[in-house]
Amino acid sequence: MTERNIQVEPIDRRAVEDQDIEIVERKGIGHPDSICDGIAEAISSALSQAYLDRVGKVLHYNTDETQLVAGSSNPQFGGGEMVEPIYILLTGRATKEYEGTKIPTDTIALEAARDYLNENIPELDVGTDVILDVKLGEGSGDLQSVFSEDGATVPMANDTSFGVGHAPLSETEQIVLNAEDRLNNEFVAEYPALGPDVKIMGKRERDTIDVTVAAAMVDSYIDNRDEYDEMVENVRDYVHGVAEEYTDREVNIHVNTADTEDSIYLTTTGTSAEMGDDGSVGRGNRANGLITPNRSMSMEATSGKNPVNHIGKIYNLLSTSIAETVVSEVDGIRDMRVRLLSQIGRPIDEPHVADAQVVTEDGVTLADIEDDIVAIVDEELANVTTITERAVNGDVRTF
Amino acid sequence: MTERNIQVEPIDRRAVEDQDIEIVERKGIGHPDSICDGIAEAISSALSQAYLDRVGKVLHYNTDETQLVAGSSNPQFGGGEMVEPIYILLTGRATKEYEGTKIPTDTIALEAARDYLNENIPELDVGTDVILDVKLGEGSGDLQSVFSEDGATVPMANDTSFGVGHAPLSETEQIVLNAEDRLNNEFVAEYPALGPDVKIMGKRERDTIDVTVAAAMVDSYIDNRDEYDEMVENVRDYVHGVAEEYTDREVNIHVNTADTEDSIYLTTTGTSAEMGDDGSVGRGNRANGLITPNRSMSMEATSGKNPVNHIGKIYNLLSTSIAETVVSEVDGIRDMRVRLLSQIGRPIDEPHVADAQVVTEDGVTLADIEDDIVAIVDEELANVTTITERAVNGDVRTF
Amino acid sequence: MTERNIQVEPIDRRAVEDQDIEIVERKGIGHPDSICDGIAEAISSALSQAYLDRVGKVLHYNTDETQLVAGSSNPQFGGGEMVEPIYILLTGRATKEYEGTKIPTDTIALEAARDYLNENIPELDVGTDVILDVKLGEGSGDLQSVFSEDGATVPMANDTSFGVGHAPLSETEQIVLNAEDRLNNEFVAEYPALGPDVKIMGKRERDTIDVTVAAAMVDSYIDNRDEYDEMVENVRDYVHGVAEEYTDREVNIHVNTADTEDSIYLTTTGTSAEMGDDGSVGRGNRANGLITPNRSMSMEATSGKNPVNHIGKIYNLLSTSIAETVVSEVDGIRDMRVRLLSQIGRPIDEPHVADAQVVTEDGVTLADIEDDIVAIVDEELANVTTITERAVNGDVRTF
Amino acid sequence: MTERNIQVEPIDRRAVEDQDIEIVERKGIGHPDSICDGIAEAISSALSQAYLDRVGKVLHYNTDETQLVAGSSNPQFGGGEMVEPIYILLTGRATKEYEGTKIPTDTIALEAARDYLNENIPELDVGTDVILDVKLGEGSGDLQSVFSEDGATVPMANDTSFGVGHAPLSETEQIVLNAEDRLNNEFVAEYPALGPDVKIMGKRERDTIDVTVAAAMVDSYIDNRDEYDEMVENVRDYVHGVAEEYTDREVNIHVNTADTEDSIYLTTTGTSAEMGDDGSVGRGNRANGLITPNRSMSMEATSGKNPVNHIGKIYNLLSTSIAETVVSEVDGIRDMRVRLLSQIGRPIDEPHVADAQVVTEDGVTLADIEDDIVAIVDEELANVTTITERAVNGDVRTF
Repeated sequence: MTERNIQVEPIDRRAVEDQDIEIVERKGIGHPDSICDGIAEAISSALSQAYLDRVGKVLHYNTDETQLVAGSSNPQFGGGEMVEPIYILLTGRATKEYEGTKIPTDTIALEAARDYLNENIPELDVGTDVILDVKLGEGSGDLQSVFSEDGATVPMANDTSFGVGHAPLSETEQIVLNAEDRLNNEFVAEYPALGPDVKIMGKRERDTIDVTVAAAMVDSYIDNRDEYDEMVENVRDYVHGVAEEYTDREVNIHVNTADTEDSIYLTTTGTSAEMGDDGSVGRGNRANGLITPNRSMSMEATSGKNPVNHIGKIYNLLSTSIAETVVSEVDGIRDMRVRLLSQIGRPIDEPHVADAQVVTEDGVTLADIEDDIVAIVDEELANVTTITERAVNGDVRTF
Repeated sequence: MTERNIQVEPIDRRAVEDQDIEIVERKGIGHPDSICDGIAEAISSALSQAYLDRVGKVLHYNTDETQLVAGSSNPQFGGGEMVEPIYILLTGRATKEYEGTKIPTDTIALEAARDYLNENIPELDVGTDVILDVKLGEGSGDLQSVFSEDGATVPMANDTSFGVGHAPLSETEQIVLNAEDRLNNEFVAEYPALGPDVKIMGKRERDTIDVTVAAAMVDSYIDNRDEYDEMVENVRDYVHGVAEEYTDREVNIHVNTADTEDSIYLTTTGTSAEMGDDGSVGRGNRANGLITPNRSMSMEATSGKNPVNHIGKIYNLLSTSIAETVVSEVDGIRDMRVRLLSQIGRPIDEPHVADAQVVTEDGVTLADIEDDIVAIVDEELANVTTITERAVNGDVRTF
Repeated sequence: MTERNIQVEPIDRRAVEDQDIEIVERKGIGHPDSICDGIAEAISSALSQAYLDRVGKVLHYNTDETQLVAGSSNPQFGGGEMVEPIYILLTGRATKEYEGTKIPTDTIALEAARDYLNENIPELDVGTDVILDVKLGEGSGDLQSVFSEDGATVPMANDTSFGVGHAPLSETEQIVLNAEDRLNNEFVAEYPALGPDVKIMGKRERDTIDVTVAAAMVDSYIDNRDEYDEMVENVRDYVHGVAEEYTDREVNIHVNTADTEDSIYLTTTGTSAEMGDDGSVGRGNRANGLITPNRSMSMEATSGKNPVNHIGKIYNLLSTSIAETVVSEVDGIRDMRVRLLSQIGRPIDEPHVADAQVVTEDGVTLADIEDDIVAIVDEELANVTTITERAVNGDVRTF
Repeated sequence: MTERNIQVEPIDRRAVEDQDIEIVERKGIGHPDSICDGIAEAISSALSQAYLDRVGKVLHYNTDETQLVAGSSNPQFGGGEMVEPIYILLTGRATKEYEGTKIPTDTIALEAARDYLNENIPELDVGTDVILDVKLGEGSGDLQSVFSEDGATVPMANDTSFGVGHAPLSETEQIVLNAEDRLNNEFVAEYPALGPDVKIMGKRERDTIDVTVAAAMVDSYIDNRDEYDEMVENVRDYVHGVAEEYTDREVNIHVNTADTEDSIYLTTTGTSAEMGDDGSVGRGNRANGLITPNRSMSMEATSGKNPVNHIGKIYNLLSTSIAETVVSEVDGIRDMRVRLLSQIGRPIDEPHVADAQVVTEDGVTLADIEDDIVAIVDEELANVTTITERAVNGDVRTF
């Protein structure tokens, strides 16, 4: 039996799916806060890999403070232009020299940010529409980590921190998460007029789900108001179709509800960062991609944190992973919350407490499944360094 | 009877005070994230007042994106020095001209930030230890607000947003909140060696409360390790005394637990921003001053938002105010959560739903107190503009 | 006969060619100061054209203050890398709105700078090796100019300013100017290892000319010290060949004389801006491409100034053009200086004084050629707006 | 007899005082270019002293690239305000660590710049009217200098460079130099309405001297147009009085000639940097305080250069000092130019050539005074390190 302190207990609330009112939000990949999250995590992954390539281990860094200052634009049917560029300051700490080897952290960060923007916000011309600036301080040398290419050893927690994860997603959560994801992948392939800045708010009152979508349209693909209105209608229909895959409840879709006769959500680049909306890391989606006030959330910004030794990042990712694994492998769970609390000075695979709180389905008792849950939690904790590996490879969702 | 949609219902969880594990955190006023929150809110208040003075109403602005890039320092017993200055970028949007009157928003922001730092982080020499830079974009003219010196009219909600507040504070929450507050006011008056960057984590497991304090010491007041250790002891004793005022549970206080023989938490300016810790608005304390994963939290940054028309700010402040008022005026409430959900296009004093969820004390039923609760919620909503007034006057806590 | 105040008189010194000691310098196109000059003038031309395209006339701007902050690099035989990027701040003033039309001056400036760097310093990867930032203030509206697509009218001088030009170039000047030009065009086509940062100092003592070349070599084309030394030799031979085309005097060529066994002039990008050398507009070459302490020079920065109404720019370009034209069309001139002095409030084609000072060749008297000189000066003044046209088209040398 | 290569010869032109047309300009201490020069030199002196204090010798640095980006203001009779702050970027290179001792170069630079502005441009509130930012790169370690508190040894020239100085000043030069100096010291003590941004252009045609003064007036001291006009008159009278001390020629004084009925030279802070005029180091006055197109000038920026090993700075200061000393000690010199040309690798007190060119007064032959001149030049060269000492102490004029 494990020596880890794993507790399984009933959750002290109803399953979110059973609550009367539920609110769920997701800021899409082109939202200014998400742009910052995405850049921060892309830099993190690039730095990790550069350290491994050059010195064989990941050195100390944190790049979780990217700040976006909005530009201004002049969108026009058929194609407008940026007037003042967006300014993005890449900031944080990174180790710049190690045993005589210099690591060009600033140019790595700039390149990672540029590549990320080119791939994810393609209408932005990086360099004219966006200024990328960098102020990476020197990390303190004594925090160098032990994650090396020879394999990972489990680091000690150097902070008291807390991670929380949930599973399964409620219907409303699934709708919000998948609607944004599929709009920005499947839908946009057919309709390039949709920009990546899609913000979705889901509100469920008992058995009625209202999904409100704010979708930035790209002016160069839209020649007049009729085409704009048609695109709004296309988005509505598409999201409705997505929603029906995840629920039998009544669903109402609202798209760009703030539009008036004179004012519509037309942009030149597909993101509201072009005109007045600033952004920061850690202000938007939590590590599971959602903002869920009905559930416990960690304030910790996950994107851009060092995945080797930042306990907040690791525990947020790991608790989510644990919850998802448990729910997929153990039957009878209606709602589950996993909390991990670190203890300074002990290995991170031995948290002060790992706390699995469960709402079982009717006919299932916690006693029936407790051992299975403990076993999975234990195994996932034992494999904590796979979280690090995946983050180094850019293979985790952090926002 | 009110026409507002006010619902009172039992909360679907135990009172936080009755849960087994409780975690509470507060980043003190000198923490880099709190510095950003404080500056952002100080600028907000200064801009509001400037608009009122100059054009008779508060115009559109949001200054909730202050970004701090850490400096580097060389602390020494007896007094060290800053080596590289902290860089703080004041950003956001503000209306710079109104009917021919120019508003010097950039210089107002710089002055407000400087004054705030001088008052709250007195060891920082603004201008040499800290660079203040500013990039305030032009706000879009069509969002000008209606809050004028002739009195407020209630604005329409222009976003779907959500605010949440709680009362009363649990014992652990009271300890964490008051320990930081009193360290930074009462204690520091006697012991100037304590810097304002005090971070407090409270963890309660059933009836044992562990309070972990990370307290930046100011080197110019400390001549050697013995004096440092004595200060650590002073903080411990003081916090223990504070804690005992709020609880009869067992309390353990831990101060600067990461100290080793070679490494202590000594700073030149009293904030970790001097050496490697960046900060942002909205990444730290919620509007009630705490981070409380056991409770619903809003992700919305409250500091720096326009208090006239930013529904997220108003509803976070108002829901907290409502919860506090209800609990102080109505007996028999053990725990209470107030949620306010806006509806686009309707006056903000008529939320889509105002949802008061209550855990009553033994012997009290919700029916006994429901009418009283509704009446108070109704009155507070009717007086929503007092929240704006207080924020304009710099008279609310936002972090 | 002209009514312009044109004076022809003997110059009160020997011809430069006849002086005992002569010093001539040119900072090549890749020198940090020249990079700034080049960017400033490229932005100027781009803005002029944008104004003509969008509002039919050139509006007020000046972009003569580009500042380059050097980066750091780690050059290596076979190819090194940039470590910290070069930072270039594009600054100045520009009119951003005209009768309701917005001019995206910032993005135009960024694009012009990027294009200029891509073309002229090809080894620099703009965006990772170089950060381009922009702070263009709003120009004062009342200085809008009168140069329109309908044809130019001659503007009034709004400043007391001074321009000076010379012809013909001395042998040493020709060597310095052409050696840099041909190294950076002809030679580099064959030997890409030569970077564009070539600085040439010519010193003539009576009949001996010493040419000292500091030439940044590009590491990716050079695999070892022998290849480096060979390149140095190639440059020396090439410059020697160039020099002999312009003089029969004794010529000694010195290349990279600061090299030691341990330290050579090896770079990653071909410019010393990559490692410690900052640059500014107007600190290097004068409008004729040279620094010539033996001759009168104007302190005025020519690059980046508005070519419609900036009298300093126009008079420096025009006086050089006049001197060159006179010398090419009138025989018997050994040395000539043309000075133009503006008079506030009068048309710029009517300078306060146009002062042509001449050293004639043996056997020629000033009286023989005075009328011809006056006629040419008069005609060039009458056609002053062609200078503006050429500058708008990017068709003048300014550094 | 000296072994230095000192040549004395007739100058190959008339004395400037005897030329027909003479142009002289001085940008006063509050001109944007002069502000940059002044800050750059103040930082240089502060760094030199800090190095001496901390490590006993002056280390490598150059801070000659300060860039000022103008703000915008709203001047009003009786007192207006800054609208957008002036931005000043302090840049250059400095050694940040030496044998384990860290030198806080950035904070030293910020403090020196702030102190300089507070003293010289007192109406500017540094921190709100002006943003000071800093980007000082790491200097290359191998260029550390040998100027130590134990006394100076003469360094080797590491560049081919050139310095030039003149004496005595012509009447026009004396008028321009002293008018600005006394306006900004004596006059302003009585009339604080005069700002420090005073630009003076002197133009002499034979025996008529026109002095054109552009003087920024400070709005808080001037309540209406009449008071403004009175101040203009006061400046005119004062400058006329100054001029008459230096010449018997006819003098005409012109003050703020660009004023119209609607537009006057009124400022809030006393410098045109508040509204649209950018500035840079080395773009304005030469090391003797003047711009003198009738004389040879060096393009080298003197301000901010390291006074220990920057040969351009040292030779510009030294050649001026030599010329002044010779003229004050040797009778019979009507005009004199001293040129110093360095030779790489030789001690800087042994220039390649020191070239004194002289116009003697009637009745004096060069032979009469040649030996005296050579002796003084020789002695001044021998004492070259006193130039360094004075620059370290902030005791030289560099602009």
